[in-house]
Amino acid sequence: MNIYGNYVTKLIEELARLPGIGAKSAQRMAFHIINMPKENVESLTNAITNAKNNIKYCSCCCNLTDTDPCNICSNPKRDKSIIMVVEDPRDMAAYERTKEFNGLYHILNGAISPINGIGPDNLNIKELLQRLNDNTVKEIIIATNPNVEGEATAIYLNKILKPLDVKVTRIAHGVPIGGDLEYVDEVTLSKALEGRIEM
Amino acid sequence: MNIYGNYVTKLIEELARLPGIGAKSAQRMAFHIINMPKENVESLTNAITNAKNNIKYCSCCCNLTDTDPCNICSNPKRDKSIIMVVEDPRDMAAYERTKEFNGLYHILNGAISPINGIGPDNLNIKELLQRLNDNTVKEIIIATNPNVEGEATAIYLNKILKPLDVKVTRIAHGVPIGGDLEYVDEVTLSKALEGRIEM
Repeated sequence: MNIYGNYVTKLIEELARLPGIGAKSAQRMAFHIINMPKENVESLTNAITNAKNNIKYCSCCCNLTDTDPCNICSNPKRDKSIIMVVEDPRDMAAYERTKEFNGLYHILNGAISPINGIGPDNLNIKELLQRLNDNTVKEIIIATNPNVEGEATAIYLNKILKPLDVKVTRIAHGVPIGGDLEYVDEVTLSKALEGRIEM
Repeated sequence: MNIYGNYVTKLIEELARLPGIGAKSAQRMAFHIINMPKENVESLTNAITNAKNNIKYCSCCCNLTDTDPCNICSNPKRDKSIIMVVEDPRDMAAYERTKEFNGLYHILNGAISPINGIGPDNLNIKELLQRLNDNTVKEIIIATNPNVEGEATAIYLNKILKPLDVKVTRIAHGVPIGGDLEYVDEVTLSKALEGRIEM
C-alpha cells in the first residue's frame, strides 16, 4: 500500500523499525518530521549521525562515551575502591539519578542468556577482572537486573570474583517503595522476608 | 545531567521532541540507534532528509506526494465525480485501508478551531471550490473528525457548498462496530438513534 508516495512510506518504514514504535506512531512521527522546519530536521539527522559516528566505549568501564576515559571514570571525586557492575548504560544512568552512589561503574553490555546465545564471553567480564589487578578496588556491587538472566550473571560473577581478594555484594531484593504489598509478586515478597534487616 | 556524554544526550533530546516520545522512549531509541549497523543508520537519516526535501502537496487534492498530481488523483480507475473531504492525509489513509471508497479526496490540512487560531482561510477550502468549476463533481462527502472542530468545519463547508450544484453528505455518526453499548458515550448513542436506518 503506497498511499503517501515513496518518500513518506520509506520514512514510516524506517521509523517503525525503532524499538517501541508501531505503525501508527511511525506515521505520526513521519508527518511531524515533514512539517518540522528544515533546520530542526537537520538538527535531528545530525544528532543521529554524530551519535553513531562519535560514540566509543570507555576503555575503563565500557560505558558509551565521547571522551575516553568517560566522565565518571575520569572524575577525581569518585571513590575508586567500589565498582558497581550493571548490565547496560541505562542501568548506570538510573543509579546516577539517585545521586546515592559515588563509586565507579562497570558495564557488562548484557547478561548471560543461553536462549539468546549470550555467554560470559560475550560480556565485558575480562575488562572487569583487569580493573582488579592493581588492588585499588575493595568492593564489587553486582547490580544486574532482578530477573533470570541478571541473577544467573550475578551468580557467575560471584563465582569468579570470590577467589580474588575483593568483597562481592548484590543489591537488595525486596518490595519497591510506594508499592502495595497486595500487588507484589510472591518471589519478591519471599526475597523481602529473607532479606529483612533489624530496625 | 550529562551521564552519557554530549552526543548521546543531544540525540536523546532531539528524539524526545517527536510526538508521543517521552524521555524514556527517547533513551531507548537512542541506544538502539547507536547499536544499529552504520548502513541502517544512514538509511534512517536519508529517509528523513528525503521525505523532508522531496515531499510536495498535490496541486489537485492537497495530499502529500512525491509526484504531482498524486497517485490517487492521477489514477484513471477512480471515480472523479465524488470527493471525500478529510482533515489530513492520515484520515485519507484510514479510508484507503477500508478499500470501500473509490472516489477522490480533498485534504483540508486541519479543521476550523478558533482556539488555535485556525479559521477557514487557513484550510484548503478555495482549492476545493476550484475543483467544482468544471461540473464533474456530483457529490462531496464531508469526513472531518467527529469532534467540535470537525463538526464546525462540516457545518461551514455545507453552508458554502450548498448554493453550488453539488450534493453534500456527511459520514454517519453512530456506535462503532465491535464496541459495547455500555461504554459508548451519550452523544454517540443519541446520534446513533437519530441516524437509525430501516432494516
